[in-house]
Amino acid sequence: MVELDPYLRQHAAELEAAAERIRPYVRRTPLLTTDLDPRLRLKPECFQRTGSFKARGAFNAVLRLCDERPETRGVIAVSSGNHAQALALAARTAGLPAVLLIPHDANPAKVAATRAHGAEVIQDGVTFENREERLRQVTAERGLTVVHPFNDWDIIHGQGTAALEMLDDDGEIGIIAVPTGGGGLLSGTALTAAVRNRRIRVIGVEPEVADDARQTLRAGAIQTLDRAPDTIADGVRPTAIGSRNFEVMVERGLIEDIVTVTEAELQDTLLRAWLDLKLAIEPTAALPLAAFLAGRLPDDGRPIGLILSGGNASPQLVADLLRARPAS
Amino acid sequence: MVELDPYLRQHAAELEAAAERIRPYVRRTPLLTTDLDPRLRLKPECFQRTGSFKARGAFNAVLRLCDERPETRGVIAVSSGNHAQALALAARTAGLPAVLLIPHDANPAKVAATRAHGAEVIQDGVTFENREERLRQVTAERGLTVVHPFNDWDIIHGQGTAALEMLDDDGEIGIIAVPTGGGGLLSGTALTAAVRNRRIRVIGVEPEVADDARQTLRAGAIQTLDRAPDTIADGVRPTAIGSRNFEVMVERGLIEDIVTVTEAELQDTLLRAWLDLKLAIEPTAALPLAAFLAGRLPDDGRPIGLILSGGNASPQLVADLLRARPAS
Repeated sequence: MVELDPYLRQHAAELEAAAERIRPYVRRTPLLTTDLDPRLRLKPECFQRTGSFKARGAFNAVLRLCDERPETRGVIAVSSGNHAQALALAARTAGLPAVLLIPHDANPAKVAATRAHGAEVIQDGVTFENREERLRQVTAERGLTVVHPFNDWDIIHGQGTAALEMLDDDGEIGIIAVPTGGGGLLSGTALTAAVRNRRIRVIGVEPEVADDARQTLRAGAIQTLDRAPDTIADGVRPTAIGSRNFEVMVERGLIEDIVTVTEAELQDTLLRAWLDLKLAIEPTAALPLAAFLAGRLPDDGRPIGLILSGGNASPQLVADLLRARPAS
Repeated sequence: MVELDPYLRQHAAELEAAAERIRPYVRRTPLLTTDLDPRLRLKPECFQRTGSFKARGAFNAVLRLCDERPETRGVIAVSSGNHAQALALAARTAGLPAVLLIPHDANPAKVAATRAHGAEVIQDGVTFENREERLRQVTAERGLTVVHPFNDWDIIHGQGTAALEMLDDDGEIGIIAVPTGGGGLLSGTALTAAVRNRRIRVIGVEPEVADDARQTLRAGAIQTLDRAPDTIADGVRPTAIGSRNFEVMVERGLIEDIVTVTEAELQDTLLRAWLDLKLAIEPTAALPLAAFLAGRLPDDGRPIGLILSGGNASPQLVADLLRARPAS
């Protein structure tokens, strides 16, 4: 066992604590092999509670909050996606109120799922532009604690538990690729890989039209997209990574690279996942598989682990893709 | 450990031998829990090699044949579905020629998949009506060995390994429900349950329009449908179970019941599997889940294991169902 530096030693302890803390509440997803390629190891977080890996970070953040600040009056976040559902479930499980600010034009199915987990949803007058201001306002009025979807150490350590399980299931894995939006999953995975085995190469995958993290890595400073990107991968629409994610990914150099895939590659891959792999994943989860199929991941002969981040796909989108596919 | 009678002792040995024999060639599928119901344990054979549990029986039959009759000149079967692909792969793996008779109007995608596994496919002039006669003819001409899709002990023991793995993963399971067509999976599962724990209740599930096994159980004699049933569950279209399946299921009384589901229930369940469980299963695999959702499985508080038999769904069918679903 190589001695870890103090930075990684601290994160190793936090990752192990996160795994312990959330174990009773999240699902230990399996590691799958497939007929597609013998090198692949798939971590299907579509089977995770609430349908995405976001449950890991949300439970870690909420449970820790309850332990360390029992006086808290509840949690709040801005999200129209998987973090909203995950935070709602974690808060309800912990007996805490949860408030989610969701832009008024968000997908009604995701709003309904968030409400179904017992959260209060505020949509009136919330827009993509004013959401951060509204967040500050409601947070102050109600005395709530903000749980940021990615720029938060408890979230990062929670997300890192997916890779912990992956490496426990197959210690030979040499490359891990994950979808990259705000960088929560990528930085958590990078920390896990670094504390487990520094020879593991961690790769982030972005849509070509949302390549701010790639630009950030190249520039050595956080780059921000001009506007929300137009991609079917709706889980990676943040316009910039967070400062903590930047610290892990760039300042500490714990990832090897960020690669991109086109929307057409993503669509083809989504259909292959559904029809060939029998995994009903969401477009965001298809990012690392698309990068593998396009030959953009490194290959050094060791098994390649892909974290398929979630399964909350739009049925309409999938129906359209199935209809439009070339006849087989 | 209760002492087994000689009949079950023999089958216990065959089941263990099958598991050992096929282990290097088939995939050990995981056992999944879901957000749907805490009692459920799902065995997703959609992730099995060739996309269905049929690989288990096919590998067991072919590998045993190679051991015991090394002079064999190849294998042959009539099938337009999952048995065809599984037998083709098993034969290619063992270095044996495989010939599949597939009715001329079968799904071209399944024919292509069978050919892709290296099998010779004969379609010219093969109809649903004359297929058994053509089988005898080609078998005699070429000196091949018939591997029946369900009325064959090696097939039955191979299929029984899915339940072996299920019970190894969760020894508390008290009820197991599986799709029922020719009865290969059901009789294999019934033998496994009987040798492991006589208190496990094994239930077969059929489409209401293809309830010959249910009639057979009620009548105590094999009942045959007048014609191939019109069901979306294309894996359970045999018009009658086999004599060996009858022996296990009815004569030995190793199953508790056979229940049915309607086509509408099956369609709804297929969509729930894809959209809520994120499992891209085929209609046949939705049978036990449909029976659970309709309240037709027994419930004694113990976990309920469902074998989701495969994932080779028609993309067109799924696209149509997604389009037609009520808006959410």
